[in-house]
Amino acid sequence: MNENPLDRLKALLGEVYDLNATLSLLGWDQLTYMPGGGAEERGSAMATISRIMHLKLTSDELLKCLEECEKQTTGLPDDSDDYCLVKVTRREVTRRTRIPSKWVTEFAEATAIGQDKWERAKSTSDFPCFQPYLEKIIELRREYASFFQPYDHIYDPLLDEFEPGLKTRDVQKIFEVLREDQVSLIRELSEKPQVDSSFLYQYFPENAQWEFGSGVVSSMGFDWNRGREDSSAHPFTTTIGMDDVRITTRVLPENLSSALFSTIHEGGHALYELGFSRKLKRTPLATGASMAVHESQSRLWENLVGRSRSFWVHYYPKLQLLFPAQLANVPLDIFYKGINRVEPSLIRTESDEATYNLHIMLRLELEIALMERKIEVRDLPGLWKERMNEFLGVIPKDDVHGVLQDIHWAGGMVGYFPTYALGNVISAQLWECIQKNIPDLDDHISQGRFEPLLDWLRVNIHTHGAKFETQELVKRVTGTPIDPQPYLRYLRTKFTEIYS
Amino acid sequence: MNENPLDRLKALLGEVYDLNATLSLLGWDQLTYMPGGGAEERGSAMATISRIMHLKLTSDELLKCLEECEKQTTGLPDDSDDYCLVKVTRREVTRRTRIPSKWVTEFAEATAIGQDKWERAKSTSDFPCFQPYLEKIIELRREYASFFQPYDHIYDPLLDEFEPGLKTRDVQKIFEVLREDQVSLIRELSEKPQVDSSFLYQYFPENAQWEFGSGVVSSMGFDWNRGREDSSAHPFTTTIGMDDVRITTRVLPENLSSALFSTIHEGGHALYELGFSRKLKRTPLATGASMAVHESQSRLWENLVGRSRSFWVHYYPKLQLLFPAQLANVPLDIFYKGINRVEPSLIRTESDEATYNLHIMLRLELEIALMERKIEVRDLPGLWKERMNEFLGVIPKDDVHGVLQDIHWAGGMVGYFPTYALGNVISAQLWECIQKNIPDLDDHISQGRFEPLLDWLRVNIHTHGAKFETQELVKRVTGTPIDPQPYLRYLRTKFTEIYS
Repeated sequence: MNENPLDRLKALLGEVYDLNATLSLLGWDQLTYMPGGGAEERGSAMATISRIMHLKLTSDELLKCLEECEKQTTGLPDDSDDYCLVKVTRREVTRRTRIPSKWVTEFAEATAIGQDKWERAKSTSDFPCFQPYLEKIIELRREYASFFQPYDHIYDPLLDEFEPGLKTRDVQKIFEVLREDQVSLIRELSEKPQVDSSFLYQYFPENAQWEFGSGVVSSMGFDWNRGREDSSAHPFTTTIGMDDVRITTRVLPENLSSALFSTIHEGGHALYELGFSRKLKRTPLATGASMAVHESQSRLWENLVGRSRSFWVHYYPKLQLLFPAQLANVPLDIFYKGINRVEPSLIRTESDEATYNLHIMLRLELEIALMERKIEVRDLPGLWKERMNEFLGVIPKDDVHGVLQDIHWAGGMVGYFPTYALGNVISAQLWECIQKNIPDLDDHISQGRFEPLLDWLRVNIHTHGAKFETQELVKRVTGTPIDPQPYLRYLRTKFTEIYS
Repeated sequence: MNENPLDRLKALLGEVYDLNATLSLLGWDQLTYMPGGGAEERGSAMATISRIMHLKLTSDELLKCLEECEKQTTGLPDDSDDYCLVKVTRREVTRRTRIPSKWVTEFAEATAIGQDKWERAKSTSDFPCFQPYLEKIIELRREYASFFQPYDHIYDPLLDEFEPGLKTRDVQKIFEVLREDQVSLIRELSEKPQVDSSFLYQYFPENAQWEFGSGVVSSMGFDWNRGREDSSAHPFTTTIGMDDVRITTRVLPENLSSALFSTIHEGGHALYELGFSRKLKRTPLATGASMAVHESQSRLWENLVGRSRSFWVHYYPKLQLLFPAQLANVPLDIFYKGINRVEPSLIRTESDEATYNLHIMLRLELEIALMERKIEVRDLPGLWKERMNEFLGVIPKDDVHGVLQDIHWAGGMVGYFPTYALGNVISAQLWECIQKNIPDLDDHISQGRFEPLLDWLRVNIHTHGAKFETQELVKRVTGTPIDPQPYLRYLRTKFTEIYS
């Protein structure tokens, strides 16, 4: 046995890293290649690995070792790897030891059933059949919060699971600013003539779409020796190791935007996961700082880069060559406007940059009200329609296009949604900073050169892994905490120009 | 905690099953889809899962529970599931507890390095560069045997790892009979005019080869909802669960035999893994009885079925339709003889039915002599050439075509080779039995109907999983222990006819 507590801690956490990596592979395979018959046993294997990981993270051996490490790292600079490792481990261990293992099992079962029932309910737009299962999940999430009393707000512990350190009140403040401004921007845009995007909905052969998207992520800097791309029903990124990060894509033959922008989005997540300092290998610091920071990376590549005019100055001629019959007669300017068309719509994942955050705000409001017992699960379908009308002026005709559209609640992920909007906000805040640091950024992008951008992201964001919490990281890089103004400025400038 | 010891044992073994399934997925992915960069971390993840599994199988908790179960199952029929579960668990636990964990780690490291060095040595045919690593591995295998003293023969514990219950002396007796007869058969055949097989080495498009092979395993009864087929450098079968069994294939565009027969071979392994009684789910009985029994299933489908005339009465017209340019002018009889051409050759995996076992005997002799310290690792290249000349009348020009051709020793699998030859022997022994039980078997096969055969295998072999040891199972089914005569009769009848 190694006598140095830090080395011992790293050995223990290395095992946890391996278990987590294994869990990622089990999950990736489940959604890509697993034959249907394997589902039940896969659930059981994943439960076993999760349980072993939980036991390791809450073991006396680790706790004792962690205490010794805390003494050993006292006085180290608070941005040193070892100090951060001990800090982040303590945070996770504290969180986990508060949760009774009985609750973990119950929650795992409730969300496994919940996702299955949600899937069925979605296929027939039958919310009442899903309602009792969601009620159980919401009850369990309330119970989860209770393990962390005292708190300022019952939603804090839920948010904290995905955004360590961030408070409900902070998020609400940011969202209030966003909401007012975004609602009025959308209203203004709705009075202008609409831009055309019909050319995006022709037949585009799947192979060619796939090749184009892969080419773009290659140019972004995705290293195919340390990752791969597969097909799945819903696109996602998964990390099986520091040198094995995988993205997935779904190609729709009659929708050019879908696969293209989701591939760039997942590519952005993947570049983050591929960019951690190698010194963090096999430690819990070799992961993203938070879900919001992760989303800032994917949205930055998808929107700030991928939906910019500069990007298409480089890529549009190539795209036209690939799809001459569909695009030869569509000029760059029309294409650029088409991929940025703003239109209040029902489905979050298909919504444009200007309206996206409003979908999130609606969900956050309902989540908070549910936790506070101000509303009940049975009220959700009605409230959803009301709020959609209020926020976006559209009303879903059924629950599939309303409250049943997302899997998150069925999976127990109450507390997750705000990270999407925060990601948008942070992406624009970083972008203003990047533009100052790389004055000829647009030139680079319009010539298909992404190294300067990727280098900046690596040095300022990626390399740190999970060493800093979201606010700490954003402040280190931009000088201020999360600030909605850059995103609002970005939206206003971009869309006023497009809809001029 | 459940108070019934057997239920508790099953819960503990269920976790071990999950860990083992996970290990299989990690291994499958490593050989199919893993990006190159992931190799190092994959090694570490697999080592962690293996270690956890080993600790669980040798834990005090399991040992105590097992003792209680032994009391509980005393008096149960010796073919009942519970009795066999306890018996097989005891066997594995006893084996594992004899092995010091220091040795496990050392062996894992030595074989990881060994396989890497073997790969390099193979690419340059440089045995001396591999020699010191193989010496280390052989030394560790001798040490492994020492943990199981007293034994009748130092090779017994090695063999036992792959063939529980079988003794070196039994194998040697069987091999002596085989050797004499096979050597004289080969001599006789070599005096007859050689058959033509040149038509197998034309260009056959890879997609078409793949489709044909998949079609054959479908007809054999492979359930695509409970398995899949992927591409890999060396074909293999892996079991990720009772309902998730995967095969791999390598297609060579200028060799029709290679992919075709290896796909049928792996299909045979897979049908075995898919055929265990569902009552054995998530237990250590949900696996093959031994490597020899496994090989009997794969070789039965590959050779007794796949290289039979009846099989091609059904499939050859389809194959000719698929490859008219290559095969339209090759009559069935010529094709049948071509795929059964006997020719002493240098590479085990490419050898025909009549010569295959001699490749195994050579390896067994050398393995035993190494263990007994009658020869040294440095003598292997020379002895290999001598024996090849003696057994088969051919001499490899270099070590790639000699001692370096197989990965087994580099992976520490000393004790494995005899299972291949025993598999051949058992396959023919079962076949005589099947022919008695299904008198119109040939008719079924020549009409592409494999259900009667698969049903027989399921009822007599597959359903039992690992409940019985090899000899016990063979005797249950055929009435006698492993007997080389059926295989020798099969070879003589088949090849005398082909070479008449």
